[in-house]
Amino acid sequence: VVEVQNMDFSVIGGDMRQSKLAELLASDGHTVKTFGLERDGTIGAKGESCLSDAVLGSQYIILPMPAFFSDGKLNTPLSESTIWATDILDALTPRLVLFAGRVGDDFKTEASSRGIRLFDYYEDEALTIKNADITAEGAVQILMESLPTSLRGAKCLVIGFGRIGKLLSRKLDGLDAKVTVSARKSSDFAWIDCLGLGKADTRTLSDSINRFDIIVNTVPARVLSREVLGNVRRDALILDLASSPGGVDFDAAAYLGLKVTRALSLPGKVAPQSSALAIKETIYNIINELECGNAQ
Amino acid sequence: VVEVQNMDFSVIGGDMRQSKLAELLASDGHTVKTFGLERDGTIGAKGESCLSDAVLGSQYIILPMPAFFSDGKLNTPLSESTIWATDILDALTPRLVLFAGRVGDDFKTEASSRGIRLFDYYEDEALTIKNADITAEGAVQILMESLPTSLRGAKCLVIGFGRIGKLLSRKLDGLDAKVTVSARKSSDFAWIDCLGLGKADTRTLSDSINRFDIIVNTVPARVLSREVLGNVRRDALILDLASSPGGVDFDAAAYLGLKVTRALSLPGKVAPQSSALAIKETIYNIINELECGNAQ
Amino acid sequence: VVEVQNMDFSVIGGDMRQSKLAELLASDGHTVKTFGLERDGTIGAKGESCLSDAVLGSQYIILPMPAFFSDGKLNTPLSESTIWATDILDALTPRLVLFAGRVGDDFKTEASSRGIRLFDYYEDEALTIKNADITAEGAVQILMESLPTSLRGAKCLVIGFGRIGKLLSRKLDGLDAKVTVSARKSSDFAWIDCLGLGKADTRTLSDSINRFDIIVNTVPARVLSREVLGNVRRDALILDLASSPGGVDFDAAAYLGLKVTRALSLPGKVAPQSSALAIKETIYNIINELECGNAQ
Amino acid sequence: VVEVQNMDFSVIGGDMRQSKLAELLASDGHTVKTFGLERDGTIGAKGESCLSDAVLGSQYIILPMPAFFSDGKLNTPLSESTIWATDILDALTPRLVLFAGRVGDDFKTEASSRGIRLFDYYEDEALTIKNADITAEGAVQILMESLPTSLRGAKCLVIGFGRIGKLLSRKLDGLDAKVTVSARKSSDFAWIDCLGLGKADTRTLSDSINRFDIIVNTVPARVLSREVLGNVRRDALILDLASSPGGVDFDAAAYLGLKVTRALSLPGKVAPQSSALAIKETIYNIINELECGNAQ
Repeated sequence: VVEVQNMDFSVIGGDMRQSKLAELLASDGHTVKTFGLERDGTIGAKGESCLSDAVLGSQYIILPMPAFFSDGKLNTPLSESTIWATDILDALTPRLVLFAGRVGDDFKTEASSRGIRLFDYYEDEALTIKNADITAEGAVQILMESLPTSLRGAKCLVIGFGRIGKLLSRKLDGLDAKVTVSARKSSDFAWIDCLGLGKADTRTLSDSINRFDIIVNTVPARVLSREVLGNVRRDALILDLASSPGGVDFDAAAYLGLKVTRALSLPGKVAPQSSALAIKETIYNIINELECGNAQ
Repeated sequence: VVEVQNMDFSVIGGDMRQSKLAELLASDGHTVKTFGLERDGTIGAKGESCLSDAVLGSQYIILPMPAFFSDGKLNTPLSESTIWATDILDALTPRLVLFAGRVGDDFKTEASSRGIRLFDYYEDEALTIKNADITAEGAVQILMESLPTSLRGAKCLVIGFGRIGKLLSRKLDGLDAKVTVSARKSSDFAWIDCLGLGKADTRTLSDSINRFDIIVNTVPARVLSREVLGNVRRDALILDLASSPGGVDFDAAAYLGLKVTRALSLPGKVAPQSSALAIKETIYNIINELECGNAQ
Repeated sequence: VVEVQNMDFSVIGGDMRQSKLAELLASDGHTVKTFGLERDGTIGAKGESCLSDAVLGSQYIILPMPAFFSDGKLNTPLSESTIWATDILDALTPRLVLFAGRVGDDFKTEASSRGIRLFDYYEDEALTIKNADITAEGAVQILMESLPTSLRGAKCLVIGFGRIGKLLSRKLDGLDAKVTVSARKSSDFAWIDCLGLGKADTRTLSDSINRFDIIVNTVPARVLSREVLGNVRRDALILDLASSPGGVDFDAAAYLGLKVTRALSLPGKVAPQSSALAIKETIYNIINELECGNAQ
Repeated sequence: VVEVQNMDFSVIGGDMRQSKLAELLASDGHTVKTFGLERDGTIGAKGESCLSDAVLGSQYIILPMPAFFSDGKLNTPLSESTIWATDILDALTPRLVLFAGRVGDDFKTEASSRGIRLFDYYEDEALTIKNADITAEGAVQILMESLPTSLRGAKCLVIGFGRIGKLLSRKLDGLDAKVTVSARKSSDFAWIDCLGLGKADTRTLSDSINRFDIIVNTVPARVLSREVLGNVRRDALILDLASSPGGVDFDAAAYLGLKVTRALSLPGKVAPQSSALAIKETIYNIINELECGNAQ
């Protein structure tokens, strides 16, 4: 393992995660330039005034997660600048290493054709697990903030047994809520049993959903349909963690007078520093592999 | 057991706990009058316009917890009214039953001399346990809100192994934080071991306190003295749950640039409905015992 | 879903799991014949006297898990009979349904060529999870029986983060042991972190293995080599759960004077009834699917 | 704190706990003589041949827990010798320090009148907690050994919420059993709720006891009376941990055909080394306090 030290990074765009990432890299002794983070109040506020300055002399360029909106604009919630995907590529020279989260195939192809080595750190399984964990803890925080009752003893339904479902149900159980997880596969049902949690079938939620005080959806499909919502208790709280368009028929929920909270991009909001640390670890791992490859 | 039903309650003063308590009593079918809760937006907003109307016809009068400030004023954060302890007593007729939380001996003596049966529901051990649990969950919420990192994996010190210490350390452990509890008694150390938590000695915190990311005090004594604070890491978070004057040398903490958060009266803030439910259960138990006594 | 009732089963060979399975099927109202279980003291003791009688009239024939030894003999620890794989096939008529656990491709091909529908229930993911859970609990029992100390507080290393590793580490953690799990993949390390457990790298166990009081191997590879064993504490306990040839260099362990316990086929030994129930559920699911197919 | 080292101990009588205690003391560098442990296979087998030799030159004499039977005989399950309480006292000179577990007032008075300083280490709250923990883990082991099913998912009733009840319910919950605890005090009910466990009333067990697969009694009173036992399921397992005469109407249980297991003195059986360690820690604490007192 080659230690990652004394390198030159540019951190471009993103939310407080990117800001914290820039700080973590700087405190590890690297040279760090930033751009597109000017409203973070810390390292980004002292950033470069243009993109070309920001990448000058850097070996590694880090874009946020997700890197771009669907129209090709860089994700820059802490900046007034409008930066396009092509601006980024135009600013880079070949042989540079570009890190970005969740980028499309077109961008990958274009970067590759320009000789830029692009790594989508969102494809790192370890990072997605760490993100799921931060998201799950953030969901607990949102539930606590939204409820006039304790989580302890509350009847909670977690829809979906993917990474977030697994980790969220664990945390709710750890706070002594009464947790049921819904899934579709018999192997998932076996796991849910083995974890001591209640189980339900995501395909037949209507039958049992009126038992729950709290319903958290993690499935990116319309599982909380009008029909299912019709059986939800009026005083229940629904939290939808699924990425757009979400898993809830929001019109039906509004019509029924149900409380629905959506939460997206939780890691950058609830724990930017832990999120940044997870990204840093992934980037260091990739750099280590690159350096080992170069060294041979 | 006599069922508690069709009774006449007056709920006077207090925070959202009292408001929720009035609602819970009403939804159990009782007649409920309120006063001194007019800014709660719900049941209190439709309350009586004066104290004498509010107690007219009621058998049971419920004051908040704590009922009075040290100057004898009723605790009425949701009201413009100034109500004195003596106003309350003057408004009541003998044989009425008065419930109040944490009242002084003078008030008890005075109520008794007027023939009013007074019950301090804060003296109910079961209620204080439920309150401690709500407080512990609220402390978790505050920690989540205050930290740029996850609780999961964070090194937490909980000072004190009373009710709140026991329940808070359990919840932090349930969220996979690394939890150490400090205490002073060898039997507490044995319990802490048996619960799988780390242990420290409250009398020698200076030695180990620099290991912790999060420090939560539950002890109503100046345990976080200038000397101990001097060893706290600059990036650590201190949460003081001890009632006034608190367990932290705040001047020293400010001088040292340490982050200190105080949290008082958490139950009414983070989970007023669960708090109200706990009070209701205690009040029902007391009424049951009274009725059983009367019935014999 | 077609309910599974009033059917005719033959349960042939196996350990107490098969015996309990026969009882469970009988108490569900099915007709159950047994053979090769005569020493079970219950239902098998009243079984048929020959294989052909035992399968006569039955629709579903159930063999144990594992069904056969490598020489083709049926696994019959509770019987004096020697039954060969070909005896079984010869005794069956086409269109019968045969259930067996972990059978080889040759047997599958032969059964198929004879028109017998064969289902290897060991291939059911849900069943292997349930078996892993029973195995993990059995491992806890063996550790308790083997140790002059409590598990609580003991430093435990679980090698491998497959099903058994996941479930065993959970149970040890639930008993307040200090649990470290070793793995090889970065995604496994992320999971182990998220579960609040310690982590180690299976490839470099030598470095840290002297810290542990208890070492449980779940990996079917020689991970506890002579070199690694050389660093194990003399008073440590090693439990090897890996199927033959196991994960321990037993010669080296004996030479070093280390305590090594092997445990194979735990489900049938420690919890035959739960094991039988899990097999029954899998068989019912398969029958349901068959019946649904037939019904259409 | 004075370190306890280079002292002279005699360990007299007792089970494997005492034997392990003698070993632990020896491996701490003390001089250790034994008597009445000759069948332990280790340190006791090399013990002194008579009581007077065994105490010669020793400063601290350690008797087992419980020290004596009701007839005044020393508790010596690992010895052929019959040793009476008076033999012990006669063999000791004034100013010696005698440690013994659970001795009667008569013995205390007699020891005192002879100028022997006697400490009943069973009166140490920390030790009783550690013993309760070892007992609770031993109870889990016995349940695992006795059951043809997994504990995971089993419906368990723990009667009593004292030390053992608290710790046993925690361990069963940690193994994902479904745990209900019965108690009598409203404050205990509040704690049980806060720990996320089910609750029942010990005074009305008849109502709900037929729901349970496993019933563990920790209360030293006849809580499992004929009437209650009449509602226990025939396939349930009853484990009685209460000291003699136990908490079960054994005649009624036998008449009803119920499986009842009794377990007494578990610490010495299931984890003699952990038990010995706990006793050693208590003894060291007492010696430390004595030495500090002498030093002043």
